Amino acid sequence: TLVAEAQSLFAPRQSLAGRKVAITAGPTREALDPVRFLSNHSSGKMGFALAAAAQRAGAEVTLIAGPVNLPTPSGVKRVDVTGALEMRDAAERAADLCDIFIGAAAVADFRPAKFAEQKIKKREDNNEETVALVKNPDIVAGIAARTERRPFTVGFAAETEKVLEHARGKLTRKKLDMIVANDVSVADGGFDSDRNAVTVIDAAGSEMLPSALKTELAEQLIARIATRALAP
Amino acid sequence: TLVAEAQSLFAPRQSLAGRKVAITAGPTREALDPVRFLSNHSSGKMGFALAAAAQRAGAEVTLIAGPVNLPTPSGVKRVDVTGALEMRDAAERAADLCDIFIGAAAVADFRPAKFAEQKIKKREDNNEETVALVKNPDIVAGIAARTERRPFTVGFAAETEKVLEHARGKLTRKKLDMIVANDVSVADGGFDSDRNAVTVIDAAGSEMLPSALKTELAEQLIARIATRALAP
Repeated sequence: TLVAEAQSLFAPRQSLAGRKVAITAGPTREALDPVRFLSNHSSGKMGFALAAAAQRAGAEVTLIAGPVNLPTPSGVKRVDVTGALEMRDAAERAADLCDIFIGAAAVADFRPAKFAEQKIKKREDNNEETVALVKNPDIVAGIAARTERRPFTVGFAAETEKVLEHARGKLTRKKLDMIVANDVSVADGGFDSDRNAVTVIDAAGSEMLPSALKTELAEQLIARIATRALAP
Repeated sequence: TLVAEAQSLFAPRQSLAGRKVAITAGPTREALDPVRFLSNHSSGKMGFALAAAAQRAGAEVTLIAGPVNLPTPSGVKRVDVTGALEMRDAAERAADLCDIFIGAAAVADFRPAKFAEQKIKKREDNNEETVALVKNPDIVAGIAARTERRPFTVGFAAETEKVLEHARGKLTRKKLDMIVANDVSVADGGFDSDRNAVTVIDAAGSEMLPSALKTELAEQLIARIATRALAP
């Protein structure tokens, strides 16, 4: 990591010049009916900060965004999506053309098995209800598993316990090149915060990046991703 | 309705001077685990516009807000809540002290039966999952059913079909004094829009308020609520 730090210090400013980067960001929303949905607390801030940092590093950036309340970073191509299947389709199309794919979105693991066209009515006699869920595709794992047109693939792992163990398991199982792990159970950092602390893990080892603004953390992550992805 | 229009035209500007009004707004979020939740598309705009209009009409306003991305209207006391049970508790406390209660929040009808302290892991062998839901309390009906310290109680009905029929059923069943019905299936109006068209229904009849900015609609609704609530 001393080598990595030295490399990132002396890397040219435009470390991703001429490269194409696709990034997913934010949550997905999985509709139960026209008014209800299942979602999660992702703000999209980390993915949007990564898109801005990659653009500043010279990359041509496609940002595939779930429903978030954030402005599009300058110079970035944004594709808005809602559900995981829609995000998967947009991500697969972008991955066909990109050198680096970063899955920073908090994709819902499950979606309702069926969508009700009309709002589900609450009935007097009905105090309990069950919602059947089916597993969503693992978008980043699908791209990492490619044998052709496979970009350098980076995943994220938001965990509440055994953070490094769970994240390293995902790195291996999903065939990722790098995974960025964070502990969403801590107060400073995680979904709603402007700050975060993460651990970057790849086959060679791990590096802890201490708590920083997501914008600063994004610069550090893009520097490390550029170094590793473009290594000969 | 000609009479109502004339009354609202000639009503004093400070029609709610010295009155206490409590308003719920926005969606509720029902947590499945530390990162996942069930919610709905309510933006909170209508409830926030009503709070601003009631404050301008001279009322002392308490706004009980679910998770929304809106600034607090000037002069309004805001209480932030997340889940339906928390909103119910805040609403009951506010109802003890208010003259008029307006339930404009889109409270989740159901919440997960149990909360998982740790993030639910997606397992390889697990392609389907069911989430057991239990019915949430009907906040506005609970307040309308009071026999003591009962404020004038106004509900909202967001419907996708048989709008007036469903809304009138709710008015009677929930013992409301007035219900404001809107069709969330139409393009112009409803949750994400700045505009809305509604029908105001009470025991005496109904009045259609055509599509207008939610801020304008809120003025019209507060004028009608003030007239009806303060009628001798």
